[in-house]
Amino acid sequence: MMDQLPVSPLKPADMPALPVLKGLRVATGNSGTRYRGRADVTLIVLPDQTSAAGVFTRSKCPSAPVDWCRSVLQGGAPSAGPAASNTVRALLINAGNANAFTGAVGAHACAHTAAAVAGALGCAPETVLLSSTGVIGEPLEAEALGTAAVRLAEDAAEASLEAAAAAIATTDTFAKWAQAEAACSSDRAVSVVGIAKGSGMIAPDMATMLGYVFIDAAVEASWLQGVLSRAADQTFNAMTVDSDTSTSDTVLAFGLGSGAAVSTDADLQAVEAAIFIVCDQLAEQIARDGEGASKLITITVEGAENDAAARTIGLSIANSPLVKTAIAGEDANWGRVVMAVGKAGEAADRDRLAIWFGPHQVASGGLRDPGYSEEAVSGYMTAAEIDIRVDLGLGDGTARVRTCDLTHGYISINADYRS
Amino acid sequence: MMDQLPVSPLKPADMPALPVLKGLRVATGNSGTRYRGRADVTLIVLPDQTSAAGVFTRSKCPSAPVDWCRSVLQGGAPSAGPAASNTVRALLINAGNANAFTGAVGAHACAHTAAAVAGALGCAPETVLLSSTGVIGEPLEAEALGTAAVRLAEDAAEASLEAAAAAIATTDTFAKWAQAEAACSSDRAVSVVGIAKGSGMIAPDMATMLGYVFIDAAVEASWLQGVLSRAADQTFNAMTVDSDTSTSDTVLAFGLGSGAAVSTDADLQAVEAAIFIVCDQLAEQIARDGEGASKLITITVEGAENDAAARTIGLSIANSPLVKTAIAGEDANWGRVVMAVGKAGEAADRDRLAIWFGPHQVASGGLRDPGYSEEAVSGYMTAAEIDIRVDLGLGDGTARVRTCDLTHGYISINADYRS
Repeated sequence: MMDQLPVSPLKPADMPALPVLKGLRVATGNSGTRYRGRADVTLIVLPDQTSAAGVFTRSKCPSAPVDWCRSVLQGGAPSAGPAASNTVRALLINAGNANAFTGAVGAHACAHTAAAVAGALGCAPETVLLSSTGVIGEPLEAEALGTAAVRLAEDAAEASLEAAAAAIATTDTFAKWAQAEAACSSDRAVSVVGIAKGSGMIAPDMATMLGYVFIDAAVEASWLQGVLSRAADQTFNAMTVDSDTSTSDTVLAFGLGSGAAVSTDADLQAVEAAIFIVCDQLAEQIARDGEGASKLITITVEGAENDAAARTIGLSIANSPLVKTAIAGEDANWGRVVMAVGKAGEAADRDRLAIWFGPHQVASGGLRDPGYSEEAVSGYMTAAEIDIRVDLGLGDGTARVRTCDLTHGYISINADYRS
Repeated sequence: MMDQLPVSPLKPADMPALPVLKGLRVATGNSGTRYRGRADVTLIVLPDQTSAAGVFTRSKCPSAPVDWCRSVLQGGAPSAGPAASNTVRALLINAGNANAFTGAVGAHACAHTAAAVAGALGCAPETVLLSSTGVIGEPLEAEALGTAAVRLAEDAAEASLEAAAAAIATTDTFAKWAQAEAACSSDRAVSVVGIAKGSGMIAPDMATMLGYVFIDAAVEASWLQGVLSRAADQTFNAMTVDSDTSTSDTVLAFGLGSGAAVSTDADLQAVEAAIFIVCDQLAEQIARDGEGASKLITITVEGAENDAAARTIGLSIANSPLVKTAIAGEDANWGRVVMAVGKAGEAADRDRLAIWFGPHQVASGGLRDPGYSEEAVSGYMTAAEIDIRVDLGLGDGTARVRTCDLTHGYISINADYRS
C-alpha cells in the first residue's frame, strides 16, 4: 500500500484544531478488509432534522455508492417544510475499495451496508449516505463492512472530525480538514467544518475526491444545494492533479438539525461565505497533496471572453504535462503556457496575449516581453508555490485554477507501485 | 540538447530504403543557429507544376510559418486548370527554433527566408513553403537561415529523403520515414514517400509534428487536399503522446509535377490508399518515439454511438496519465480504463461496457469478467506493444487511437533537462 509515501512538502505548516460539533457523533475503525494497522471505515451519525446536499462525479461510469447517494438525496433532500423521513441520519465511508464497476453486486453491497447502519441506529436505510474510495472493479466485502459499521454505531460519540479525516484517506500523505466561523445574528457563531481526501485521479468535474462539509446550523436542503454547487464550481471543480476524473467523486454538505437557527439573508450569506472558505481550503490541500507534487501552482486567467472560457483555458494550462514538467524542473518555459492557451479551443488572440510568472512579465503583445530577464524568472521558479497569470486581452472573463507539478514521484506512485 | 537521448526501444526494426523521386531535389545542412554538429536545415526543391495541400494545428496561437503556409496555400493551391503561378516550388524546414510567439518579427523572418529561397531559385516568394520546429518564443535568426538556404539551393540534387528526415528532427530519437507504391494503370507505379518528426507535445489536432508526403504523380491540389484531410483524420489526428498540441503542427502533401499522369478513378484510389499507408506508418513511428516511451499502445473502441464518440473515448483513454503510468508499470489496471471511458463525456452505459487487454477479456457487463486471470493478463502486460479494446455496446461507432506509456523518461526529458 501507499502508507510509506513521504508526506508532501506542500502540506500546510499549521492545521487548525477542529471544534467538536454538538450533536454530531463520529467513530472510526478498521474494517478488516484491505488496509492493516489503520482506521479505514468511518461512521458519522447526524442529528435529527439534518438536511443534506451533494455534488457528484460526472463520470458515465459512476460507482455504486454515487448511485446510492443520488437516490437518497433525490428521495429525501430538496424539501421545503417538515419532511422528517426525508432527513439524512448517517454517513458511512470506507477507504480501500471504491465499489465501482462492480455491477449488481455493488448495488447489493450498498443496500446491505446501509441496512446494517440503519438497523444499528434505528433509522431507515434510505437515510444513510455511503461513500467508498479505493480500487475499482473489486467486489466490496459488504459483510465485513456491515459488521464494522454496527460496531462503530455503538462507539459513535461527539468528537472532532480529525480522526475521520485520516480514516477516509487512501494515497493521501496528510489528512485534510478546514474550518471557518460565520458570525451570525443568532445566539452563537456558526461553525463550518470540512474534511476531504484526494491525491490522484483528480480533475474536474470533480476532483477525484471525497469531501464532507458540516454546518452547525439548521438550513434548508434546497438552499444548501445551491450554495454547495456554487462553492464546488469555484473550488473543487477548479482544481486538477492529473486530468483524470474518478468514478467516485462525492462532496456532501450537511446542515445539522441540532445547530443554530439561521434564517435572515445576512446570516445565510455569512454561512455561505464560511462554506466557501472551507471548500476552498480543502481544494487547496488536495492540490498540495497531488501525487508526487513538489510545487503548488495557481493559475489566474483574465481577459477571457467569459468566465467559462477562462476556466477552460486555466484547466488547459493546469492539465498540460509539458507545463507541469517544466515547473517541476524549475524551468520558466512560458512557451508551453502559450501552447496550452492555444490548444484550449477558446477564443484567444496570439498577439494580445500577456503572461506573468509571479511578478515577472514574460510575454506581452504576442512575443517575449522586452523586460524579460531569464535570471530573475529562473530565481522565481525555485519557489514552492508558483503563480501563473495569463491575460487574454479579449473580455472580462476570469478564473482561478489550482494544480501541482508533474514529477518522477507521480510516475513512481502510479507505475512503480502496484495498487 | 537532446542528442544524447537513447533510441526508443520501440523503433521499428526495419526501415525501408527510400526511392529517389525524379525531379525532387534535396539538400540539408547546418544553419549555424541552435544545433551544433548536425544538419538542422532542409531545402526541398519541387518540380514545376507541383500541387500542394496542407493540414495545420488548430492552436489559436499558431506559429509564423503556419500562418505563412496557410497564406501560400490559400493563394495558390486549390485550383482546377493551369495556374502556373499557383504551384509551389520549394519547402524550407529548420529545426531548433519554432518561430512561434515571435510577433511581427516572426512574420518578417518568414518573408525574409522565403525571399532568400525564391531569389536563389528564381521563383516567387509566395511559392515557397516554410516550417520551423523547436523552442517557442525565441526570435528566429532569419539572416543565418536565409544564408544557409541560399547555399542549400546550390547544393540541391536528386536524392533520397532519408537525410532530410534526420535533419528535421528535434527530440526525436530516430528519423521517421515511410513509403508505399500505388499500382496504377499509367506507365509506372506511383511512389509515395513521407518523412516526419515528432516526439513530444503530441496530440490531435494535430500531433505536434511536421510531416511531408511526396506523391510521384501530378494530381490536382483540390483532390490532394481532400485525400490528405481524410488520411490525417485517421492517422495523425488519432494519435497522442502527451495531450499537448503544438503551435507548429504541419502536414503537407505534394503532387509532383514531374510525376506520372494519374486521372482514372481506379488510379486515384490506388494513390489515395498509398498516401494513407504512408501517413499511418509515420503516425505509428511518432507514437513509437513518444518521449520516454517504453510501450506502444493501440486502443480500439467499438460499439460507440458514432465514430466521433469512439475517437473521443479512445483519446480519453490514450491521454489518461493513470492509464499510461499503469501500462508503464505493466499493471493490468483496467479500472483506470473504466475511469477514462466514464470521464470522456460521450454516451456510455457502465453496465454494457466490455474491455480486453490483448486477447484477455477483463471486464464485461459492468463488472470484472468471470474468466479474468490476473496471472494471464499480467503476463500479457510485459509485452512492448499493448492492445486495449473497449466495446461500449451502444452502436456502430469505431475508432483506433495510438499512444505510448508515461514513464520516468518523459519526466526526465521535460523536467530534468533544460531546453
